[in-house]
Amino acid sequence: MIIHSKIKDYEVVMENNTDFLNDLCGLKDSQFVIDEKVYRLYSDKFSSIPEDRLILIEAIEHNKIIDTALEICEKMTEIPAKRNATLISVGGGIIQDLTGFVANILYRGIKWIFVPTTLLASSDSCIGGKTSLNYKKYKNLLGTFYPPDTIYVCPIFFDTLSEKDFKSGLGEVIKFNIMAGDTGLTNIENNIDKLLIRDHKIVREFVLSSLEYKSKFIEIDEFDRGERIKLNFAHTFGHAIEVVTNYCIPHGTAVAIGMIMADSISVKRGLLTDEVANRSKQVLLKVIDIDVDLLNVDINDVIKAIRKDKKQTNDSLAAVLLANNKGLSELVIVYDMTIEEVKYSFESFFDDYTNK
Amino acid sequence: MIIHSKIKDYEVVMENNTDFLNDLCGLKDSQFVIDEKVYRLYSDKFSSIPEDRLILIEAIEHNKIIDTALEICEKMTEIPAKRNATLISVGGGIIQDLTGFVANILYRGIKWIFVPTTLLASSDSCIGGKTSLNYKKYKNLLGTFYPPDTIYVCPIFFDTLSEKDFKSGLGEVIKFNIMAGDTGLTNIENNIDKLLIRDHKIVREFVLSSLEYKSKFIEIDEFDRGERIKLNFAHTFGHAIEVVTNYCIPHGTAVAIGMIMADSISVKRGLLTDEVANRSKQVLLKVIDIDVDLLNVDINDVIKAIRKDKKQTNDSLAAVLLANNKGLSELVIVYDMTIEEVKYSFESFFDDYTNK
Repeated sequence: MIIHSKIKDYEVVMENNTDFLNDLCGLKDSQFVIDEKVYRLYSDKFSSIPEDRLILIEAIEHNKIIDTALEICEKMTEIPAKRNATLISVGGGIIQDLTGFVANILYRGIKWIFVPTTLLASSDSCIGGKTSLNYKKYKNLLGTFYPPDTIYVCPIFFDTLSEKDFKSGLGEVIKFNIMAGDTGLTNIENNIDKLLIRDHKIVREFVLSSLEYKSKFIEIDEFDRGERIKLNFAHTFGHAIEVVTNYCIPHGTAVAIGMIMADSISVKRGLLTDEVANRSKQVLLKVIDIDVDLLNVDINDVIKAIRKDKKQTNDSLAAVLLANNKGLSELVIVYDMTIEEVKYSFESFFDDYTNK
Repeated sequence: MIIHSKIKDYEVVMENNTDFLNDLCGLKDSQFVIDEKVYRLYSDKFSSIPEDRLILIEAIEHNKIIDTALEICEKMTEIPAKRNATLISVGGGIIQDLTGFVANILYRGIKWIFVPTTLLASSDSCIGGKTSLNYKKYKNLLGTFYPPDTIYVCPIFFDTLSEKDFKSGLGEVIKFNIMAGDTGLTNIENNIDKLLIRDHKIVREFVLSSLEYKSKFIEIDEFDRGERIKLNFAHTFGHAIEVVTNYCIPHGTAVAIGMIMADSISVKRGLLTDEVANRSKQVLLKVIDIDVDLLNVDINDVIKAIRKDKKQTNDSLAAVLLANNKGLSELVIVYDMTIEEVKYSFESFFDDYTNK
């Protein structure tokens, strides 16, 4: 699959086995940055990388900072090819955010090959070019748009994901299907059980269709100033849930919760039928698997967190909601969301989850 | 003048007086970053900027680092408009490099208005979108491509430039004219004396024609992977001269020296007639005004510095040389420059300069 970008067109290559890693390991003038957990799990695949070309990083938010990025930059100055060097990174969203930033700011941009190893990164974040770093108390304050040159997606890696991480990835996969309207919703209803047992063939199909769906938005609005904002469906709520639970709920799961919250407001506003909202909820509840104590939060903190989101540029609250008209879905950006609506949506979700 | 860019089209606005600053000072949701020297010289023009919206920076290489960039980012989080905030920077190349980087990495890119105050920034660097930071011992190691949204060029600011800085700017102006072939060379020969006395009308004309000439290259090859490398004419030598003299020679002046060096190699290779090289040299020597002791350098250090340039990606030495055929100039990228040629070109320049 080719993604058209203003910065550079780039390719997503689907791989059925890890043979492609052999070629990557032998690539001249390259530096590897690998999630240390992934490296341990698949060390035999990476054994031919010389020690001085390998950086292992613990994939935690605390390492997604400028200091780590600068260390990688400095290490790469040792490669004589300089701006013709290649950065190869292997891991999930944290590794992607960090190494994408490095590839962008070193020598004003170097070649970058990314191998996503989580379902979330493979089905969603690997395309679109967003890079980000945390700074002090500000999550993702720093960042740029810089896509990899090539992305190798290999569902083999998903076999070693924890149940929590795999289900988080499914949250975003379901999101794309729900956004796509009736056909997408039916498709995900029919396949959710196979997805949950990580059926390679089905997972691969859904990864591809998710990327295809997303690519339409990012090709129209690469720099996130218009159409692409619609991909933020449910994220206003999801981000807030992540913040108030101190990031104990993984991103895709928070987005799944956010979808249930958003849809309850859509139903109240008459944008969505009860039936569609309910069907979506049934699928979503299958992948939301969290400690219910995490939800004992002050609703005012949720609202405060929504207000702090970098996409909130006004006093009133904005969100992307789903509307559905005769089976065709539409994403609506509303700027007049009330505090009461947020409270109602959170309480509805809380009831749904505790009674499931 | 509109510059077409893949990131965003942007505009260069020529201003004959500083009235435009009034509008800028009143711009909502904006943060000013101003060269403290410029601020002192023109403080009455900036008096309406509230203290909390103003950052003054000493424009020295040591401040063109990530720490300064991050301080500006953090200050800008105070603006409620977040990613809709505007950064307005006023100063020369150092302020541009620093604030362009900030505007790029904060919230994945914010609006940026740049007011260049040096001749060098106004006639050359303000377009093309290059941003850069120094890191430890590495000059300009970090950087991105991110153009301002609007550039206001106002030659009034040149009146307060030191002779050294103004002549440095003329180095790049002459470069564009020499690159343009016989017409350009004749044009600069006819006007160099008026330029040297900073005749506003003539300076304005040459700033515009320089930007117009440069824009053709950056529009074809924004990300500096092909055609744009030709703009590096003389820079291989110029950068090396800057390095071995510990940056005591300003950039444009070093480039002027680099042109004389490059042309002497062109003549030796039969690419350029003695006549054209000599005419260029006569104009260039008018703006090169340095302490001759600075040139007492070890030629091997010059070669070492060339080898370290980030554009040198191979073992052999590369440079952009000028060729001239029946009045039409052509820029040739050579990859086989010898150490002897570099030595010869430096010695030729040394003789020319000490005997001028």
